[in-house]
Amino acid sequence: MPIRSHIRDYSVSFEDDPSFIGELAATKDACWIVDANVWELYRQSALAPLAEADVAVMPFDETRKNLETVTSIYDRLVEKAAKRNLTLISVGGGITQDVTGFAASTLYRGVRWIFVPTTLLAQADSCIGGKTSLNYRAFKNLVGSFYPPSHIHLYTPFLRTLTEEDYASGLGEVIKLYLMGGLDRQAALRGQIDALFARDDAALRQSVAEALRIKISYMEDDEFDTGKRNLLNYGHTLGHALESVSNYRIPHGQAVIIGMVYANAIASERGRLAPAKAAALAVLLRRTLTARPTGEDLTPEPLLDAMRKDKKRCGQQLPLIMLQDDGSLVRVNDLTEQEARAGLTQLGHWLLLEGNAA
Amino acid sequence: MPIRSHIRDYSVSFEDDPSFIGELAATKDACWIVDANVWELYRQSALAPLAEADVAVMPFDETRKNLETVTSIYDRLVEKAAKRNLTLISVGGGITQDVTGFAASTLYRGVRWIFVPTTLLAQADSCIGGKTSLNYRAFKNLVGSFYPPSHIHLYTPFLRTLTEEDYASGLGEVIKLYLMGGLDRQAALRGQIDALFARDDAALRQSVAEALRIKISYMEDDEFDTGKRNLLNYGHTLGHALESVSNYRIPHGQAVIIGMVYANAIASERGRLAPAKAAALAVLLRRTLTARPTGEDLTPEPLLDAMRKDKKRCGQQLPLIMLQDDGSLVRVNDLTEQEARAGLTQLGHWLLLEGNAA
Repeated sequence: MPIRSHIRDYSVSFEDDPSFIGELAATKDACWIVDANVWELYRQSALAPLAEADVAVMPFDETRKNLETVTSIYDRLVEKAAKRNLTLISVGGGITQDVTGFAASTLYRGVRWIFVPTTLLAQADSCIGGKTSLNYRAFKNLVGSFYPPSHIHLYTPFLRTLTEEDYASGLGEVIKLYLMGGLDRQAALRGQIDALFARDDAALRQSVAEALRIKISYMEDDEFDTGKRNLLNYGHTLGHALESVSNYRIPHGQAVIIGMVYANAIASERGRLAPAKAAALAVLLRRTLTARPTGEDLTPEPLLDAMRKDKKRCGQQLPLIMLQDDGSLVRVNDLTEQEARAGLTQLGHWLLLEGNAA
Repeated sequence: MPIRSHIRDYSVSFEDDPSFIGELAATKDACWIVDANVWELYRQSALAPLAEADVAVMPFDETRKNLETVTSIYDRLVEKAAKRNLTLISVGGGITQDVTGFAASTLYRGVRWIFVPTTLLAQADSCIGGKTSLNYRAFKNLVGSFYPPSHIHLYTPFLRTLTEEDYASGLGEVIKLYLMGGLDRQAALRGQIDALFARDDAALRQSVAEALRIKISYMEDDEFDTGKRNLLNYGHTLGHALESVSNYRIPHGQAVIIGMVYANAIASERGRLAPAKAAALAVLLRRTLTARPTGEDLTPEPLLDAMRKDKKRCGQQLPLIMLQDDGSLVRVNDLTEQEARAGLTQLGHWLLLEGNAA
């Protein structure tokens, strides 16, 4: 699957078996960085061709998504007498991608970088698009770069060992992309959703490929995120606010799922999405929540405050990306406070929350 | 002067008077960063339209060209409630450009950045090309990004207050670009060189524009530095080695000047450049050296070692970019040790060194 980029064209290959790891192990001047969880799970199977001495095994989590971890990667690379023509090969999820991608983009102004995503979120969504993000002090994703991997190897059997929460978060993004892919894809999703919940490998492989194709259709000609690509933020107006207000207890993937239900509620109120369809999507999306938000999580004031502070806001009122009946998406910038509050109430109903404070 | 870039097209404007500072001062959501020397020199003249409270005045030197200074810029920007649509406006020389450009390229994956170069090196050379570099621990320029300013304002009267050494280093790059610009430009340079040494503003303005035009001709279609653009490293094989061996006592601009004389010596020996022309260029280039290297600086062993270690080296022998009689440049990768040593001897003669150890 070739992907055009202003920075560098790159490609994704789907792997039938883990033999690609052995082939990658022969890469000259390679420096491997593997997420510690992935290493523990796969060191004696898929990753067995790698000699432990050649691999930097590093823990990656939200608290390590920062410049300090990037500099520890620089240290590792220069210690191995890194040269400008080195290849960084990283194996892990979205945070591994963020940190190793930022390091790859800034070492010698950019070195060759091969990425092997191991989570559903990374495989079906973040591995393409070329964005890297780091937290800086208390600021989430303040720092980052545009830098796609040179090549991405997708091996869906890695997804078998994901935690329920990580898997469900990824599934939320897969569903988001299918919903954004037009009415035919929305129908296809309904036929496939049970197989996806069962982690059926054939269904996963097909869905990951389809999700990437849909994402590519939104990215093309808008790599630097100024117009159409912005529609990929469907679910993010409330999603970001929920992450922030919950102090990141509600993870990104789950927050975006809730944000989509919320956007659908407002789209329905505005007559852009049939109420029956919005309600049916709420049932589907609810299945991917491993933990319901509490009524307190949906208290309007802090959420409205957080939405107003979002760095992507341009005008006086709030922005919202809405799914419409014809399968297209639209971004509006005129969400009123009254609509935003009413949406939270409907959201509480659709998520079957009790003690809904909204 | 428009410049095409894969990242973003940008442009350079030549300013007749300092009123552009007042116009820039009206930029909404602007954050100013001004080199401390420049601020002291111009706060009551060209920079008078800026309120001190709105300006981050920072010292920039080689020891501050690092991630620590970049994070102090992040701190400054978020303290001013920086939003994604902020504009960073920086005023200073090449190091100011490196540090503020890296910060601009990585904050929110890239914010609007306006650069006002105040040194000859920055005006005539580094302001275009989109490269930023940071030192990391003991490693020079290990870290960096490709990120051009959105706009560059050139005001040549800033050059009047440069130190002799800074001015001469910039002049070395101007001469380099003229030499790379073909035989007509080489002739034009001879007619203009005295006015340039006298810092005549009309001559400077014309030469800065011409130097940028020549650089653009080498960059076009090769923004990420893989082929033709590499020829801009004329003078850098020995130049980098001299910087490194002298522990950066010999500054970059001066080291490149010496490196050009050296490359010409070898080109002459290989029959690519007439000895009389190489000798005449040595006389011209010698005028831009504010301090001669010592015989010890040209001791072959450490220089050869440093050239072998250069990160841009690809093959077994040494690379060299040579100017040729027809005005074109050529890169070879087969410089032998014997040639490299003989070149140092000739260099010592042309620089009129006594006690020449080479």
